[in-house]
Amino acid sequence: MSQFSFHSPVKAFFGFNAIENLHTLLKPYKRVCVVSGRTSIDKAGFKKYLDMYFKTKEIFYFSEIEENPSINTVIKGGKFAREKKADVVIGFGGGSPLDASKAIAAFATNNKGFYELLSQDELDNEPLPLIAVPATCGTGSEMNNYAIITDTEKMDKVNFAKDNTFPKYAVIDPVFLRSLDKKIIYATAFDALSHGMEGFVSTRANPFSDSMAVTSMEIIMATFADGAIATSDETLLNFLYGSTLAGVTILHTATTLMHALGYWLTNEKGIHHGTANAILMPYYLEMLRLKKVERYDALAAIMQKHSFDIQKWQSELGYDVSLKEIISESEIEAMVDYALEKKNVEYMPFKVDKSFVMDVLVRY
Amino acid sequence: MSQFSFHSPVKAFFGFNAIENLHTLLKPYKRVCVVSGRTSIDKAGFKKYLDMYFKTKEIFYFSEIEENPSINTVIKGGKFAREKKADVVIGFGGGSPLDASKAIAAFATNNKGFYELLSQDELDNEPLPLIAVPATCGTGSEMNNYAIITDTEKMDKVNFAKDNTFPKYAVIDPVFLRSLDKKIIYATAFDALSHGMEGFVSTRANPFSDSMAVTSMEIIMATFADGAIATSDETLLNFLYGSTLAGVTILHTATTLMHALGYWLTNEKGIHHGTANAILMPYYLEMLRLKKVERYDALAAIMQKHSFDIQKWQSELGYDVSLKEIISESEIEAMVDYALEKKNVEYMPFKVDKSFVMDVLVRY
Ligand SMILES: [Fe+2]
Ligand SMILES: [Fe+2]
Repeated sequence: MSQFSFHSPVKAFFGFNAIENLHTLLKPYKRVCVVSGRTSIDKAGFKKYLDMYFKTKEIFYFSEIEENPSINTVIKGGKFAREKKADVVIGFGGGSPLDASKAIAAFATNNKGFYELLSQDELDNEPLPLIAVPATCGTGSEMNNYAIITDTEKMDKVNFAKDNTFPKYAVIDPVFLRSLDKKIIYATAFDALSHGMEGFVSTRANPFSDSMAVTSMEIIMATFADGAIATSDETLLNFLYGSTLAGVTILHTATTLMHALGYWLTNEKGIHHGTANAILMPYYLEMLRLKKVERYDALAAIMQKHSFDIQKWQSELGYDVSLKEIISESEIEAMVDYALEKKNVEYMPFKVDKSFVMDVLVRY
Repeated sequence: MSQFSFHSPVKAFFGFNAIENLHTLLKPYKRVCVVSGRTSIDKAGFKKYLDMYFKTKEIFYFSEIEENPSINTVIKGGKFAREKKADVVIGFGGGSPLDASKAIAAFATNNKGFYELLSQDELDNEPLPLIAVPATCGTGSEMNNYAIITDTEKMDKVNFAKDNTFPKYAVIDPVFLRSLDKKIIYATAFDALSHGMEGFVSTRANPFSDSMAVTSMEIIMATFADGAIATSDETLLNFLYGSTLAGVTILHTATTLMHALGYWLTNEKGIHHGTANAILMPYYLEMLRLKKVERYDALAAIMQKHSFDIQKWQSELGYDVSLKEIISESEIEAMVDYALEKKNVEYMPFKVDKSFVMDVLVRY
């Protein structure tokens, strides 16, 4: 066991009715900027909840976060929070609004250009305090400081993560997942599972991240094994807790090749991030097996223990198909070229070369 | 699974040579107040290390922390740090200096009386940033905000824990344990084990603290099972990591009756805190068994898995004796009366009554 570091700085409140903690958490603040996507905040009932129970606060809604939030949106949101003189930010929704809310909390107090602030090791001013309220069971964004922002001109993603872009609190209440579509629940659970899996084999894994990764995988697979009726409260609770621990995992380990490849499917084919990982998962596992990665056996044992059947859940997602049925061989090559440029690949437990990856993706 | 909250806010650097991180961590600071006991800082080589590698810093040593640090010492240390205009505090040693350093970091910036500051929900000023460097494998104090301070007049202990009395960093390097006596290593490992055990059965246990508790117990018991040669680096590493996770556990769960009883043995009989827990552990387990506590079976299974033999390690500590051989029956009663007044007892998984506890302690 060599040297490593670990922490989980976000104070998380978890469980049905965890949202009630907002009364205490918002006490010191008067002007609340709520960052979300266009519709989820209504659909999940969060806006109604805030309007009903927080009449003494000034609440400003910035509900313009798109899937894969852009630099422009984040700058605009920062300006919005600044002009409204918000003293706290709530990020509500899936990975996109949560990631965006971290950057918006930073730009609210730092009136600078995106790349200018990105290039600074330290921010000039502390970001506004941020409360993250997830409404999917996938990214675990509420537990880390990652903020994946899309540069629409370069058609690429950058991570706006700083030492102080962690949410101060996460309020993790499965009630907001009840309004989600079944497919979204499964897709985001696959995202969380991929975080646990990649975190477990990452070269940055350490004993603490391993505890988080293994526990999160066990919970998610056990829930899938139980049939995972997406509408049941127990399923939502389990997927969400697994996703939260997986978010702590990748804070330590980052993600690896599966995510790097998946980004291409999302960017180029508009496939949901979690579904992209579900499609790629069997190929990723096959690569680990072929390269005799030490931890592959442990991973296989956990899957076997829970009779984890990827194909079954792929078909629930409508993607029980091979990669070649979705994209052409030349597109697969473009995807691999894109992925191999990504930093994620550095944390793979074997030296990744193009021909090997191509081989598995095309022939497996 | 009802609602719960969790976090592990201290950023921990763990492993042999973790101490090298001090170069980075101390960069923003100029005037360092080092809080420790009288001798350990020399014996463990930490003073020599600081004097050798941090010549550009002003270092002020407050090496007056006694076992079970007193209010007076903490106030004196706060004044010392304030007068030296320290901008950072390093706490070095076992639980006593680490606990004291948290309070000293607070009194350095808050020039008030002990009970005056204790009674405030929030401190007027942020404490000085604190770096905790443990030199035993027991308390896990480096991972939480607990600061047990002794009121020598009332002959009692109070916990000076505030939301912002967490260390900012923990630097956890087993190298400093090499100078410890074998008995101290075993005794402090028993302390850590008792934290895992009590945290696991505490009514405040939650899924996150359970992960920490189970992992810490497994590591410590497995190390004991291996024979636990106290001088081996592997033993120190394992005990220390287990102790660290147990420190995260009790941050969530607090301790329970075993600790409450043990405090009396320490206060009245001068028995080392870890040894006191080792003496009481079989009685505590018997109480859980008799009361059919749900988690007793899981605990027993973990112990059986690692063939954990308490008696063997008690005899290594020189205390392979029944309680009655150490104290009289009337003293046992005094101990129970003392313990039942403690808040720890509230977190017991059964309703604790005096006659039951007496019965087990006297007759088992
Ligand atoms: Fe992801
Ligand atoms: Fe203890």
